[in-house]
Amino acid sequence: MKAFLDEDFLLQTKTASRLYHDYAKEQPIIDYHCHLSPKDIAENRVFDTISEAWLAGDHYKWRAMRTNGVAEKYCTGDAPDKDKFQAWAETVPYTLRNPLYHWTHLELQRYFGVSDLLDGKSADRIYDVCNEQLPNLSTQQILQKMKVEVVCSTDDPTDSLEHHEDWAQNGSGLQLLPTFRPDKVLFTSDVSAWNAYVDRLSEASGVEISTYANLLEALKNRHDFFASKGCKLSDAGLERLYASEFTEQEATDVFASLRKGKAVSAEDGDKYRSAVLLELGRMHYEKGWTQQYHLGALRNNNSRMLGKLGLDTGFDSMGDFPQARALSTFLDRLDGTDQLAKTILYNLNPTDNAVFATMVGNFNDGSIAGKVQFGSGWWFLDQKLGMEEQMNNLSNMGLLSRFVGMLTDSRSFLSFPRHEYFRRVLCNLIGTDVENGELPNDMDLLGGMVENICYGNAKQFFQF
Amino acid sequence: MKAFLDEDFLLQTKTASRLYHDYAKEQPIIDYHCHLSPKDIAENRVFDTISEAWLAGDHYKWRAMRTNGVAEKYCTGDAPDKDKFQAWAETVPYTLRNPLYHWTHLELQRYFGVSDLLDGKSADRIYDVCNEQLPNLSTQQILQKMKVEVVCSTDDPTDSLEHHEDWAQNGSGLQLLPTFRPDKVLFTSDVSAWNAYVDRLSEASGVEISTYANLLEALKNRHDFFASKGCKLSDAGLERLYASEFTEQEATDVFASLRKGKAVSAEDGDKYRSAVLLELGRMHYEKGWTQQYHLGALRNNNSRMLGKLGLDTGFDSMGDFPQARALSTFLDRLDGTDQLAKTILYNLNPTDNAVFATMVGNFNDGSIAGKVQFGSGWWFLDQKLGMEEQMNNLSNMGLLSRFVGMLTDSRSFLSFPRHEYFRRVLCNLIGTDVENGELPNDMDLLGGMVENICYGNAKQFFQF
Amino acid sequence: MKAFLDEDFLLQTKTASRLYHDYAKEQPIIDYHCHLSPKDIAENRVFDTISEAWLAGDHYKWRAMRTNGVAEKYCTGDAPDKDKFQAWAETVPYTLRNPLYHWTHLELQRYFGVSDLLDGKSADRIYDVCNEQLPNLSTQQILQKMKVEVVCSTDDPTDSLEHHEDWAQNGSGLQLLPTFRPDKVLFTSDVSAWNAYVDRLSEASGVEISTYANLLEALKNRHDFFASKGCKLSDAGLERLYASEFTEQEATDVFASLRKGKAVSAEDGDKYRSAVLLELGRMHYEKGWTQQYHLGALRNNNSRMLGKLGLDTGFDSMGDFPQARALSTFLDRLDGTDQLAKTILYNLNPTDNAVFATMVGNFNDGSIAGKVQFGSGWWFLDQKLGMEEQMNNLSNMGLLSRFVGMLTDSRSFLSFPRHEYFRRVLCNLIGTDVENGELPNDMDLLGGMVENICYGNAKQFFQF
Repeated sequence: MKAFLDEDFLLQTKTASRLYHDYAKEQPIIDYHCHLSPKDIAENRVFDTISEAWLAGDHYKWRAMRTNGVAEKYCTGDAPDKDKFQAWAETVPYTLRNPLYHWTHLELQRYFGVSDLLDGKSADRIYDVCNEQLPNLSTQQILQKMKVEVVCSTDDPTDSLEHHEDWAQNGSGLQLLPTFRPDKVLFTSDVSAWNAYVDRLSEASGVEISTYANLLEALKNRHDFFASKGCKLSDAGLERLYASEFTEQEATDVFASLRKGKAVSAEDGDKYRSAVLLELGRMHYEKGWTQQYHLGALRNNNSRMLGKLGLDTGFDSMGDFPQARALSTFLDRLDGTDQLAKTILYNLNPTDNAVFATMVGNFNDGSIAGKVQFGSGWWFLDQKLGMEEQMNNLSNMGLLSRFVGMLTDSRSFLSFPRHEYFRRVLCNLIGTDVENGELPNDMDLLGGMVENICYGNAKQFFQF
Repeated sequence: MKAFLDEDFLLQTKTASRLYHDYAKEQPIIDYHCHLSPKDIAENRVFDTISEAWLAGDHYKWRAMRTNGVAEKYCTGDAPDKDKFQAWAETVPYTLRNPLYHWTHLELQRYFGVSDLLDGKSADRIYDVCNEQLPNLSTQQILQKMKVEVVCSTDDPTDSLEHHEDWAQNGSGLQLLPTFRPDKVLFTSDVSAWNAYVDRLSEASGVEISTYANLLEALKNRHDFFASKGCKLSDAGLERLYASEFTEQEATDVFASLRKGKAVSAEDGDKYRSAVLLELGRMHYEKGWTQQYHLGALRNNNSRMLGKLGLDTGFDSMGDFPQARALSTFLDRLDGTDQLAKTILYNLNPTDNAVFATMVGNFNDGSIAGKVQFGSGWWFLDQKLGMEEQMNNLSNMGLLSRFVGMLTDSRSFLSFPRHEYFRRVLCNLIGTDVENGELPNDMDLLGGMVENICYGNAKQFFQF
Repeated sequence: MKAFLDEDFLLQTKTASRLYHDYAKEQPIIDYHCHLSPKDIAENRVFDTISEAWLAGDHYKWRAMRTNGVAEKYCTGDAPDKDKFQAWAETVPYTLRNPLYHWTHLELQRYFGVSDLLDGKSADRIYDVCNEQLPNLSTQQILQKMKVEVVCSTDDPTDSLEHHEDWAQNGSGLQLLPTFRPDKVLFTSDVSAWNAYVDRLSEASGVEISTYANLLEALKNRHDFFASKGCKLSDAGLERLYASEFTEQEATDVFASLRKGKAVSAEDGDKYRSAVLLELGRMHYEKGWTQQYHLGALRNNNSRMLGKLGLDTGFDSMGDFPQARALSTFLDRLDGTDQLAKTILYNLNPTDNAVFATMVGNFNDGSIAGKVQFGSGWWFLDQKLGMEEQMNNLSNMGLLSRFVGMLTDSRSFLSFPRHEYFRRVLCNLIGTDVENGELPNDMDLLGGMVENICYGNAKQFFQF
């Protein structure tokens, strides 16, 4: 029997262990997609309590606590930090087999040297032990300790990027780069919110936005600005891609209606989204960026809690939208004019794994190795089985060896061990195949592949 | 090599074996969803032949026999019981790797002490051995032997519940409770069948039903009646949930058309179903019941056999309906007015596992531990891999530890070993994780979790 | 640690090894669905270079090369054969975990006795070694070496079948039979291409085609002709089945519009397809053929490359079309008049596995063992995990023992080791179950089952 969370955690064979310890472990981290606060990095934030660092903003933990019968007061509410920690600690034993159980103990070990199991009894002691160490775990100390070379934050086009600028001037040892995420320009169902956003975009860009052409000009302006601050990626989080038939005139007309505050039909909204996404895709290509699409979330399922707590508080989940046709059409339109940027497609519903894994192959044309990528297991799929299924689909239907690998997608500075977790899962998959005689026992070949997936591929692909 | 179906059947590690034998095995059974006949229980039915007890009504076996080239005469037809048994026995060796192969031999062992493999050659002898023991295997003897504490049958709102009443007066050692399953009030495609049903509902409730308001009154009347007989659960078997936009007036109008015998459009039918389901959901909440939704079956695929044999004879299978959006909207409507009852969602198509596993998390608000549940593998998914996938999705995306666990969903008194089967699969999953170092080797912690999933959670959740 | 690709490749247990070596290995091959060239067989083609035999026409390899950053020149282009081989060889190490890695080395071993790993360094030597042996690996020598008893090619209804005729007269040791694949009569979106095809069909059949009735007559004529040349199977490759409500008159009218060169609506096109497919299904039943449906591909995703390279060059992938309802209705219509032929359903998207596995059970009526079959893992699913999932779904929801097993679906004479690959996967699944105590250790029973799935079932089912 293997001990829980020992040095060969998740590594079931000797080959897996060798691959991890000799090749994967020491690779630096390129976290090319996350939601860390640039301000917290630039200002070298120090957390007062482990609750502040660990529980605040973590909707994964809140969902688990609510499911465990814990009152909202201890999740997003105003309970004292220590009581919140206690409530979380009492929930932890109920998370057995959930990735939270692994993440929790990995993070306690890696950041705080705590090897005990967290539960209601150990909570008090562990709370103190962690808090004592926080003064030496500023955001910058954490990034250094975790060997993070690149952080790509996720930023709205209207963002000033002042902290990225600050870091570029004064920071060292780490690239802190913005990512262009223009989702809000696409969400037209709440017309007044959309108009307010377009106003902000107008202000940020200095472009008066009264027509569709103005909108594109403003977006282009901010796109250029982001590029000037080192941006190399875009992102969009959508239920699905949009690839309706549309004309320039239709896009212009729909925009005009929206800008007058009129609601538009779902069909017209889709035409507008199809038009804007295509224009943005062309901009990404022109800049040599990599475009990311996170597809398939069904958001804000619980209106009552949305009203109380706002967005991103743990009430989002998975849709079962058809994805294939629109994905194909969208990518084909860009490719048809030879304007398809490097692309990463992430699916939230695992049922789409095979569609995504095969779709990328349609647009890999030999121009760049791994040009169109099937992205790593995301959100609810960011767990052992989810990662394995993503990598097995990618392996069987594409080239795992060209995979740009893991990202945290996280708001938490304590979540970097997810890279370690991914690396262990990767090495275990390959190691198992080797021991079973399904891959040749050639450690140079396999070790190089592992190093590339953990670090080298991303470095080369994104050109950091 | 492990022997077939020995005491450590399905238990691949020592830890799995300890968890099963020390914690799971002796737990009583709460069969909170099944289709057992309350009459057979109340009257303590004794079966004449093993064919009567085992083959009559078992569409799983009939499907296998038909696929194996066995004529209908030996399935639902008028062949003598012994010949039917022989035909089934000859099919058994062709069911290798199907759950029927395991169920068959588990049931022969557990009820009849027969350890031989059933096939064409052993059929004759096993037929006699089983038949000899039937006089000592009355329905009540079976329930006692299997340590069944609670049976929740599945009953139409028009049912008299006389056998439940009889049992409540005269029975002992077992709770026999009804479940409110109002599917027929929702099926409007055959308008005359629907009207005939509404007439029966009128008679049962004593409410003249000429308006939509009357219908709700009649349903409420029967709902109260069921509650008075100890009902604690409802159920609905639907292709998908219905959550159309509708007004009270629209529901009223659609009902009026239907009641006049007019067919209504699919869209109007959906409005009516959306309205009724919402009202029923509110009743369930008011009573403190648990509502169950079994979603995703595509029924009556074979018209020719439907005409010959009627419903539920083995010609149903899986649909691939979109589920997420309507599920979300339906639950949100109930939650929005704080009228969401405890809920269990069951999917038939395994492709929906992740959607269901994440959906429940959107409505767990801390009020009750595990308030909204992702239900156990159902029907075609009631097999080892189906159970494993359900539990892995639940584990990764929710809290396995709060799971209310297994039910038979069966018409057969010989199917209780499916609880044993589930428990072995559960213990094996956990045991494997422990041996792999993915869970801590803490038998108190894990044993308690196993006991709860096998028994304690259901007892507490349903408040039997 | 097992050695890579040794004699127990993919066989993880002793029981698996025994099942493979004692029962599966020596079974002849019935390749009941492939795309081999009848001309190449009849003329006993000899290949000049391994590139010609191995790379030309292989869109699997082209996709991998493009994903690996290899220019089109080395895929479908005019680079010299040796350079193409070098480019492929350099890609091979990047295909680790893709089935191409296994297929490549299996084929080098089985046909050429080459056990070295192929990569950029070994390419030169292996190129020469293979080329030297090609004169002794004519198509007929290959078929004999691989113990192929039956090859069913895939043929357009307008095909002359001259090579099948030639082989029937002069060939020996192998049945070379045509398969009737009338896809082009169903593809109406390009009306002029469709009309050109109908003209060809008119010519081939000698039937003037100006009405829908003429079309059916012409198809019937070719159907009879195919039957006269030994055809026993049909096939159709569609996004999904079509089962719209339609009348004879509607089908006639849509046909008339199309024949006049007018585009028709998607809805009308579907009515036409529904009508024609139903008529074809009845013809298949009348002849006692087996009808195959390959469902779920999303084709021609990349317009730019389609324009350059044409069809079937590696730019097809998976759709996520709803499948269940239309499948059910289509099969039910044929079954309703007792005209449902033996049928095999193949899905491309693995998310449909369970729907297909359960759907076939609705139409197995005891008349023929395994009458409606869930077909083997196809195209992107033709790999270990894809096969395992297909067989696990089939096992759990149907009868694996009645499975007609593997086919290559290939254009390449070097792809027959895929039967070996399938057999190893099959034996490994069963062997693992035995060692785990989930199947009885009865080698006669299991060995017989394996032999049947590898050979006997197909021979009996198709009546070769």
